[in-house]
Amino acid sequence: MRLALGVRYNGQAYQGWQSQLSGQTVQDKLEAALGRFADRPISTLCAGRTDAGVHGLMQVVHFDTDIERTPFSWVRGTNRYLPDDIAIQWAQPVPGAFHCRASAVARRYLYVLSQSPVRPSLDAGRVGWSMRSLDGAAMRSAAAQLIGEHDFSSFRASACQARSPVKTMRRITVTQKDVSPDGERCQWHFEFEADAFLHHMIRNIMGCLVRIGHGDERPEWIAEVLAARSRKVAAPTFSPAGLYFVGPLYDAAWGLPAEATLGASGAAYDGPP
Amino acid sequence: MRLALGVRYNGQAYQGWQSQLSGQTVQDKLEAALGRFADRPISTLCAGRTDAGVHGLMQVVHFDTDIERTPFSWVRGTNRYLPDDIAIQWAQPVPGAFHCRASAVARRYLYVLSQSPVRPSLDAGRVGWSMRSLDGAAMRSAAAQLIGEHDFSSFRASACQARSPVKTMRRITVTQKDVSPDGERCQWHFEFEADAFLHHMIRNIMGCLVRIGHGDERPEWIAEVLAARSRKVAAPTFSPAGLYFVGPLYDAAWGLPAEATLGASGAAYDGPP
Repeated sequence: MRLALGVRYNGQAYQGWQSQLSGQTVQDKLEAALGRFADRPISTLCAGRTDAGVHGLMQVVHFDTDIERTPFSWVRGTNRYLPDDIAIQWAQPVPGAFHCRASAVARRYLYVLSQSPVRPSLDAGRVGWSMRSLDGAAMRSAAAQLIGEHDFSSFRASACQARSPVKTMRRITVTQKDVSPDGERCQWHFEFEADAFLHHMIRNIMGCLVRIGHGDERPEWIAEVLAARSRKVAAPTFSPAGLYFVGPLYDAAWGLPAEATLGASGAAYDGPP
Repeated sequence: MRLALGVRYNGQAYQGWQSQLSGQTVQDKLEAALGRFADRPISTLCAGRTDAGVHGLMQVVHFDTDIERTPFSWVRGTNRYLPDDIAIQWAQPVPGAFHCRASAVARRYLYVLSQSPVRPSLDAGRVGWSMRSLDGAAMRSAAAQLIGEHDFSSFRASACQARSPVKTMRRITVTQKDVSPDGERCQWHFEFEADAFLHHMIRNIMGCLVRIGHGDERPEWIAEVLAARSRKVAAPTFSPAGLYFVGPLYDAAWGLPAEATLGASGAAYDGPP
């Protein structure tokens, strides 16, 4: 039987998603806990590997098992063996043709950026930071130039293993929230949806959007960066602290929960991170 | 010169506010950082001591100093020496008659409770948890019975050092947020405002409200608990994880920032914690 899981985690304490010899990754912790619950080794695949310090609102993984348990007993039983900052949200039996990475038709990320003269404290490691005010209209104008199918090589890490740098960006939404009475402090939420993302793509785009938001470049500059197809022209990779993998989306035919289903009304996260 | 500071912190890593020999408290870290910036020892008083694991959105402290610096240089300079999870938000010179504890005319706390079949993960240590659904109307009906001047001995920790158990509860607001499409998951925000609070008072009230929210007691039960004036009848002290000291309020005459001033429009926190 093939089982899919939705997994939420705070990435601050981990060296990213993918297994390493250190054992200090989210995948290592998840597989160790599944192994204890199932009383045999379990290897998982995931929908989107996250970097060190990046969080997951709904990572999706799958694996095959001959153990028969109710879906919620997988959730409750495995969570008992997971660290406090990782928890399975749901488990769902899926057809053998389902593949968490290959079957995903879209992926969503959220970047939370705190604008304040004072650095983050209560939210340290959970939000990016801009000391200077950001121009929302300029950032939205720049973001609009990335929508559609493009070669995103300019925003691609050198270590990226994707077969092609051509991806389709479906949506970038820039929202200002929780503005302080004096207007100095606020939170910016950047939501990204694409068929898939390259390694460091969002953090590299964020570096450029923030530079434009500060007025250090014009909004049109991002089109020049995109057209150059060279990592050398983009801004430096932005901090991982405010980045959340909201999750992948799948066709309704797979029968996954609403938050993982394309076109369903489900929100992928039930509250601000 | 007397200086007041607004301080924000994540309490997860600390043994509460008040200095201890271990040095692992928020006050210890703050005074060490102030001492490095000022190049001489600085002792602070605070508006409300918080327990281990409780967070501060705007703790207010004061101290006397003969060092002349602009207020923002105190903020920026001291934050450089503070751990990532503590940051001064503002500094303000105040008259010598100002006392952060004695001058406070009200204090506000926020309790954030996650209702979900699955335990917290991304928010571990930052929210309380109820696995079962909560009845908002029942909790609001119970909370209303605590409004006004009462002897709150039933909700007082044995170690409490307050002179009197009589306090005036001005407001308890219970708000349901971020409800998931299936209605199973949400966040509950409990806001408390009183002239002052006893040790463990909010966590003990929370224990009772959650018991009522679960339907294990009637809303009227909380009036019986209050009338008993005995700690033995109340529910166990609830987890510190979701508790935030929003901050004290002062008369406008002291000239503090809006978020610390009674009747000002300032919000004490610029976003959901």
